[in-house]
Amino acid sequence: MEPEYTNAGDGYAADIVSIREAQARIKPFARKTPVFTSDTLDSVVGRKLYFKCECFQKGGAFKFRGACNAVFSLDDAQATKGVVTHSSGNHAAALSLAAKLRGIPAYVVVPRNAPKCKLANVKRYGGQVIFSEPTMQSREDTANKVMRDTGAVLIPSSNDGRIISGQGTICLELLEQVSQIDTLIVPICGGGMASGVALAAKAINRAIRIFAAEPLGANDAFLSKKNGRITKLSEVDTVADGLGAFLGDHTWPIVRDLVEDIIVVDDKEIIQAMKLCYEILKVAVEPSGAIGLAALLSDSFKNNAAYSDCKHVGIVLSGGNVDLGVLWNSFHK
Amino acid sequence: MEPEYTNAGDGYAADIVSIREAQARIKPFARKTPVFTSDTLDSVVGRKLYFKCECFQKGGAFKFRGACNAVFSLDDAQATKGVVTHSSGNHAAALSLAAKLRGIPAYVVVPRNAPKCKLANVKRYGGQVIFSEPTMQSREDTANKVMRDTGAVLIPSSNDGRIISGQGTICLELLEQVSQIDTLIVPICGGGMASGVALAAKAINRAIRIFAAEPLGANDAFLSKKNGRITKLSEVDTVADGLGAFLGDHTWPIVRDLVEDIIVVDDKEIIQAMKLCYEILKVAVEPSGAIGLAALLSDSFKNNAAYSDCKHVGIVLSGGNVDLGVLWNSFHK
Repeated sequence: MEPEYTNAGDGYAADIVSIREAQARIKPFARKTPVFTSDTLDSVVGRKLYFKCECFQKGGAFKFRGACNAVFSLDDAQATKGVVTHSSGNHAAALSLAAKLRGIPAYVVVPRNAPKCKLANVKRYGGQVIFSEPTMQSREDTANKVMRDTGAVLIPSSNDGRIISGQGTICLELLEQVSQIDTLIVPICGGGMASGVALAAKAINRAIRIFAAEPLGANDAFLSKKNGRITKLSEVDTVADGLGAFLGDHTWPIVRDLVEDIIVVDDKEIIQAMKLCYEILKVAVEPSGAIGLAALLSDSFKNNAAYSDCKHVGIVLSGGNVDLGVLWNSFHK
Repeated sequence: MEPEYTNAGDGYAADIVSIREAQARIKPFARKTPVFTSDTLDSVVGRKLYFKCECFQKGGAFKFRGACNAVFSLDDAQATKGVVTHSSGNHAAALSLAAKLRGIPAYVVVPRNAPKCKLANVKRYGGQVIFSEPTMQSREDTANKVMRDTGAVLIPSSNDGRIISGQGTICLELLEQVSQIDTLIVPICGGGMASGVALAAKAINRAIRIFAAEPLGANDAFLSKKNGRITKLSEVDTVADGLGAFLGDHTWPIVRDLVEDIIVVDDKEIIQAMKLCYEILKVAVEPSGAIGLAALLSDSFKNNAAYSDCKHVGIVLSGGNVDLGVLWNSFHK
């Protein structure tokens, strides 16, 4: 067996060591989520699929891993004034829960159009909600004001070494559960999960292939890879409300170097995959959560001869926080 | 520890020995389903809840356990002509899958109004569908005709020792996973699961209290317990399409003796519990699958002082085969 590749010299914001530290740090709090399989779906795609069910994570999404790692990384002096973030919802809820577990305040800036169920999660976990307009500028400005007013520490949703390390624990866990995985498909948004998963996977086995799945209406990561630099969009439009943010200076180099390809799917494909998750796996995923399966089922992945040897595919079902009303409407689009 | 209570002298159609045999028999085929917990739901009800997620069982419902046990109990001479049943859906799919695994034909008589997704499951597993009218008489007559025509062995959905033993394995598994359970709540229909679970639980720990949950529009088990004899209804009307059948001569004595109470809930309570399963547990259950949680949340259970010491409650989420369209309509009732 070749020695573990640590990325130590690559200058990334995280590496396998920080990911293993995160795993130990969050172990008392985070759930070890199950891996589901389905003979039915396997026979549809002609590959063995392993669904890492992060919708069963505390707070209903993988985001708790990163948030928990970040909150418990703070020393007491830093932590005492609390934490602040802006997020479309899942990171906000996750940070609220992690802060609650540490006994410190969480201030969360949430765009006015966030799904109700995600807002309800924030409140359930005791997070203090501050609304912003649904633009990145308004979100950042509002969060900066809260920092100045309270002295709270900013915990970004993706572009942060502690977050990347926390999300990387998904991959450590999955490869412990299913050692034969040769391919991983994860949703991409700010790139926290994609970065963490890619760093962990490549450290454990350089041969594992990493793909990220992105909605057509928010395809900034695809464009960034194509252009060779971080590319942002002036607006995003997708049913996958969790996937509207952009890559940052910490996540981009990792995505650039370690993610082989960004598979772009449209909303119809996302909804179709979501229905399969409900009907076949019996797992209540949100649209963002199903996008990895959508990518795998897409013509561009299916018909690409270079991917024909992706035989044991791990797919992260990233979250399950969905308004049932919105869900149904999207099924009828 | 007191010696295991075997029920051997009670004349029931199954006992702890047949349930343990079933566990060994189905082990190569059935899934060991996970047990989910939720701090949120625990804090709502003031008890510790353990959700045995049989919606993740093969075929999408617990029914595979009984069907698999029955099919693999047959000797080769019996098995060769195949098996036949009538079922509202989940048993039909489960029997089709079990027969497929054994390499024998399955003939399934399905009422015309069965949910499409359940029919799709039957066909996916290679079962041969024969439609009947949606009355028990038509279902039985049609199944009898298939038996005569094919020589197939009838495998009832509930009222059968092999089925009761198979369903009892849910309880063996759950008590292995969570030893501190003091109370169990299961859906009741034909009584196969209630009987099997009650027999297993009482054999392992006589102190475990067993409750069954039943829809108001199909409350035959409630009436049977009240009247002290099997009581059938001329018609049933409930959103819980899996719970329309009645107790039989094998299941009734066990339900009569070992099930402490039947908790009756209306469709609104069932739908509310179902929403909680989706939104909090992220588990896609069918209405019948959520009825145990509905019973626990009902005023009649909550306000009954005799149940205040039910502190560690196991709830079987029995299945997840739901037409999403029907689901949504029921949410808006």
